[in-house]
Amino acid sequence: MTLELILVGFGNVARRFASLLDERRARLAGEHDLDIRTVGIVTRRHGHAFAARGLDAAALANRVARGGPLVASRPSGDRSASSSVDFIRDAIDRRARTAYERCLVMVETTTLNILSGEPAIAHVRAALGGGAHVVTANKGPAAFAYHALARMSHRADRRFLFEGAVMDGVPVFNLAREALPGIEVLGFRGVVNTTTNYMLNAMEQGQAFDEALVEMQAMGVAEADASLDIDGWDAAAKTAALANVLMDASLTPQRVERRGITRDLMHRAIDARRAGRRLKLVARAGYEGSKITARVAPEELPGDDLLASLDGQQNALILHTDLLGEIAIVQRSGGLTQTAYALLSDLITIARDVGTARATPQPRPRAPRGRSR
Amino acid sequence: MTLELILVGFGNVARRFASLLDERRARLAGEHDLDIRTVGIVTRRHGHAFAARGLDAAALANRVARGGPLVASRPSGDRSASSSVDFIRDAIDRRARTAYERCLVMVETTTLNILSGEPAIAHVRAALGGGAHVVTANKGPAAFAYHALARMSHRADRRFLFEGAVMDGVPVFNLAREALPGIEVLGFRGVVNTTTNYMLNAMEQGQAFDEALVEMQAMGVAEADASLDIDGWDAAAKTAALANVLMDASLTPQRVERRGITRDLMHRAIDARRAGRRLKLVARAGYEGSKITARVAPEELPGDDLLASLDGQQNALILHTDLLGEIAIVQRSGGLTQTAYALLSDLITIARDVGTARATPQPRPRAPRGRSR
Repeated sequence: MTLELILVGFGNVARRFASLLDERRARLAGEHDLDIRTVGIVTRRHGHAFAARGLDAAALANRVARGGPLVASRPSGDRSASSSVDFIRDAIDRRARTAYERCLVMVETTTLNILSGEPAIAHVRAALGGGAHVVTANKGPAAFAYHALARMSHRADRRFLFEGAVMDGVPVFNLAREALPGIEVLGFRGVVNTTTNYMLNAMEQGQAFDEALVEMQAMGVAEADASLDIDGWDAAAKTAALANVLMDASLTPQRVERRGITRDLMHRAIDARRAGRRLKLVARAGYEGSKITARVAPEELPGDDLLASLDGQQNALILHTDLLGEIAIVQRSGGLTQTAYALLSDLITIARDVGTARATPQPRPRAPRGRSR
Repeated sequence: MTLELILVGFGNVARRFASLLDERRARLAGEHDLDIRTVGIVTRRHGHAFAARGLDAAALANRVARGGPLVASRPSGDRSASSSVDFIRDAIDRRARTAYERCLVMVETTTLNILSGEPAIAHVRAALGGGAHVVTANKGPAAFAYHALARMSHRADRRFLFEGAVMDGVPVFNLAREALPGIEVLGFRGVVNTTTNYMLNAMEQGQAFDEALVEMQAMGVAEADASLDIDGWDAAAKTAALANVLMDASLTPQRVERRGITRDLMHRAIDARRAGRRLKLVARAGYEGSKITARVAPEELPGDDLLASLDGQQNALILHTDLLGEIAIVQRSGGLTQTAYALLSDLITIARDVGTARATPQPRPRAPRGRSR
């Protein structure tokens, strides 16, 4: 089977995704009978490109990483797109048969406006509306509009997947969707933002807030606008997405009670560490009566708490469930490859789906004798 | 959809499973359109029972828990079964149409002979051979004969599921099968035996080995033959099952290098604890060149190791993967309900399967215009 991709956003994550697809080409063909071809790329600053026969996304990733434009010159047949949404609609239109065959996927990795969830939500609507599946590493759509988009996806009979939105490629959403049937999630707590986790770890060892922040930015871990991390917006968006998907809540990031980390936490972090405790930015959701509430705030945790032992780059989520009690999933290494894998894992989920739907139903031979009612 | 069950083994786990099915009847009907009916029960010591129209398994569980036999008197139509395998074959024969419709499931929870994997393996073969799916909380089949039984399951087009074999209902096998597509597991380490974990925790606080063991037995946590826990056999069987399924190894428990816990570990445990370290019975598997090797042995771990922080009843597994680096899954509460849920989750997996296979393929209207090749 061939899946065709429209890449919307072509930053670090999408470029690593493009190179990962290249590295895995033979294995995807061998193990999943899956060929993946990029037909369109649209970016905010580097232009756009479309080719029905496929683009060399890995080569384009290299070119863009070196500061070049997506296309050296406008190829024949290229249409000018006035916006990314127009580009998506146009690309789906050009690949209408592929979309009809359920083999067209938009891969969305744009930068999020944390106050609106845009432009990701508009991209998701355009893709599902045209008959393309959606795979995104963006937390915006699930944080702001999960139920509306899930309904749209259901009606369109196309998938809306976002495994990379929380804890990179560690399968939080997949776990709940596929591996915990019949389980009700009653609440959760976790450490889901890497920048603040790194910073608190540095601060408890005496490093100043601003110094730790500069280090995170140099490492490319912090968001472009670091206040999104520091003020807890990133964690709040992830918390809303988790609560919406795992607990069927209807939260937005704004409705998550939110306190971020501040300069004056350094002494508290140092004191906590000395006392065998750890200061962490903890995301929580749970029931208050019949209402689901969520919050993000610094919390002092006992040293033997699972969340206390997390290194800078580690994230973890502890689910409180009805039948299994507490189970936890821990991401012990993070990075671009993990997020790129999240996109790939969602593509494989779609390929399995399409494959199952295509499989010829087994012929039913005559039933053997039986004494059934 | 109705699934019919043949319960093979009716000890603590199966009896809790029977009461759980009763508690969840309305939710299974509402959320999964699933009715589950027990048609046969066979035990080693309490006799057997069969009723095509269904047994009241929860009531029978109560009776057996109070020391009673399964049946007050032999019901009309009952056949005497000379062995549990005969009972399985006979029950499938009586429910041949259900088996043919892929709606008959054997639920296997017998006591394991750790040196052979029997009688569970014979039960699995009999069930798959007759066209029943297999759900088991038993580690024997996956530890001793995973590949042979998986092939048999594939040929029979019936499922062979065993989520409860390791870490109760925490979805270790489901996670790898459903939620990590395209990921290669390169190795793992974990704490997977509860009795020894409890005992080491008690010993590091100065409790004597034998005292700790008696406590575990009183709590019903230790295996009936506690040497299976203490000598590391239980952990070795789980390690073999994990390596076979997650890494495609061909191990048996005997081929896992194995050291259990001994009386003389008390002082080492106390010293380790004082030095901020923890002594744990660690299960490991990994590659040595192209060969997969596995071992179970006491290891002294740094205090901030994820495995070090586990309480007595907690288990954890850290997977080392190619694309995601390390991810961990932690069971923070264990017990009969968790194991019973594992069986239920496997049943829901089967119901989803059968439901998907039955779903009518979507009619394909004429394709819209498109410029595809």
